Amino acid sequence: MGRPSPVTVKRVASLGAGPIGAGWAAHFAARGYDVAAYIHSADEEAAFRKIVDTGWVSLEALGLADGASRDRIRVTTDLASAVGDAEFVQESAPERLELKQALYNDLGRMVPEGVVISSSTSGLPMSNIQSDCSTPERTLVGHPFNPPYLLPLVEIVGGDKTDPEAVVWAREFYEIAGKAPLVLKKEIPGFVATRLQEALWREALHMVANGEATPEDIDTALINGPAPRMAFQGQCMAFHVACGAGGMATNLDQFGPALKLPWARLEAPELTQELRDRMVDGCNQIAGDRHFEEMAAERDRAIVGVLKAVKAAQESSPHASENNV
Amino acid sequence: MGRPSPVTVKRVASLGAGPIGAGWAAHFAARGYDVAAYIHSADEEAAFRKIVDTGWVSLEALGLADGASRDRIRVTTDLASAVGDAEFVQESAPERLELKQALYNDLGRMVPEGVVISSSTSGLPMSNIQSDCSTPERTLVGHPFNPPYLLPLVEIVGGDKTDPEAVVWAREFYEIAGKAPLVLKKEIPGFVATRLQEALWREALHMVANGEATPEDIDTALINGPAPRMAFQGQCMAFHVACGAGGMATNLDQFGPALKLPWARLEAPELTQELRDRMVDGCNQIAGDRHFEEMAAERDRAIVGVLKAVKAAQESSPHASENNV
Repeated sequence: MGRPSPVTVKRVASLGAGPIGAGWAAHFAARGYDVAAYIHSADEEAAFRKIVDTGWVSLEALGLADGASRDRIRVTTDLASAVGDAEFVQESAPERLELKQALYNDLGRMVPEGVVISSSTSGLPMSNIQSDCSTPERTLVGHPFNPPYLLPLVEIVGGDKTDPEAVVWAREFYEIAGKAPLVLKKEIPGFVATRLQEALWREALHMVANGEATPEDIDTALINGPAPRMAFQGQCMAFHVACGAGGMATNLDQFGPALKLPWARLEAPELTQELRDRMVDGCNQIAGDRHFEEMAAERDRAIVGVLKAVKAAQESSPHASENNV
Repeated sequence: MGRPSPVTVKRVASLGAGPIGAGWAAHFAARGYDVAAYIHSADEEAAFRKIVDTGWVSLEALGLADGASRDRIRVTTDLASAVGDAEFVQESAPERLELKQALYNDLGRMVPEGVVISSSTSGLPMSNIQSDCSTPERTLVGHPFNPPYLLPLVEIVGGDKTDPEAVVWAREFYEIAGKAPLVLKKEIPGFVATRLQEALWREALHMVANGEATPEDIDTALINGPAPRMAFQGQCMAFHVACGAGGMATNLDQFGPALKLPWARLEAPELTQELRDRMVDGCNQIAGDRHFEEMAAERDRAIVGVLKAVKAAQESSPHASENNV
């Protein structure tokens, strides 16, 4: 079959002219790939180029791969030409199931045999998207976070008909392409990151609806509270390290009862022995042989850097004072 | 009454030897205050000093105030001596209501008249804490985020008997003392930031309980997905700016139906016209006259800085590879 080794891929196709499709095109170009960018209509090219140019400023600041150039993005309104010699396809078409199903019907025939087709969908299950595709075994979800040229996360999950080997391939390819891939255990609505963000967002909407906080309060609380820490340390390790030598075990054994308190509209799951052990074992595994004081010192160095970076960005703004909501 | 102007405060008392009490002592010392630190027992002094020393590394990196010194932290086990001439008191005693009530009974008599007493409690309502205090009008909650010497947020809320003027004073004082104060509209369990974090945390526990994700998956998703953006832009403005010229109105009008989807265990509130308008007006107010493209460019600059800062912190770790969960 025609699937190349992930490390030899040189030509990728990015489908879609919106912020996600154009953002992917910019990202792949910055990592040194030749990019064939399919846009639905020539009218969209100016907007597409603008997003690429905006993204390029940041991509240059982060460091381009050898030979990377925006000139290696070829824009076309001919789908067959875009994907005809692609070694990987990233699809970021509008989020309408019928539209994607029809597209995957075409792609199933047009994309060279075995080449992986990855969808940026943030909510549609691949099992549904791939239903009319004649070669569904190489289709999967590769869901980025906005802006896709900056945030490293890509959540990967196949559908019912996806070959597990395609998932393995995609994980390796995204990693080589400079992303932070996360292979999901199950095809769950919203995947992992969006579910976490959505729980937070819904609680925020409840607070605004109840007059407990304004949008400005919500953002002030996030920016100055959990977020600078979370950019370095996820919530699991944040609690693990904050609880000292006892780690996550101390957190759950001591604060477990707080899960019953009305500290969020969302009710917590029952803290069974099994859930406790999964959390504790998971955190211990991440920590490895690092001592909690070492991890706390690393966290602090990261937060100092994050706070300085945010401050520098605020001060570079012509409206610096308003920015610090 | 004896309450000084917030700008003239020179002497503060910090009560508590744990990470929060010691963290506050380090923060105030770094901002140039004389700090009287009350610890319950002399046995706790070594641990207290260690937390201060750890915090000092980061506080120095962020920049100390003129004349700031750890030597200006006076440790004592005599509560009356710690608060006798204090111009502000930050209380970080253990989270047990009876203990805090007894403490506020003492503080109500010992702390000079009018001087504000602020509790670091993360969950107990001030209306309950102040019930046995003879001078409750100057008591309130000033809830920090861990580590308190680094994260700027302080959530401020009074109890039933708190004088609103004390809340105004505390807000001004915390701002002068280098914090990002947020005055809450209501005394709600968990305040604002913890509620948002708790909703996310409970969704994470549900996912681990259901075998949908491991703790490592959760942290990978947060660190590489929403967090680097959230350190600069809260969730409200993230959606506002991502939706281009239409902003939050486009977000809610277009993605409103997604609030009914099972993208988190937490059900969203009804998206009434009133809630929609509060969100839209709130975001427009934060944005002021800034164009969305300008805000997106600011966001990108901040994310680039945050990603670089996190990478530098990871690389400075002796276990760099394990760190990038």
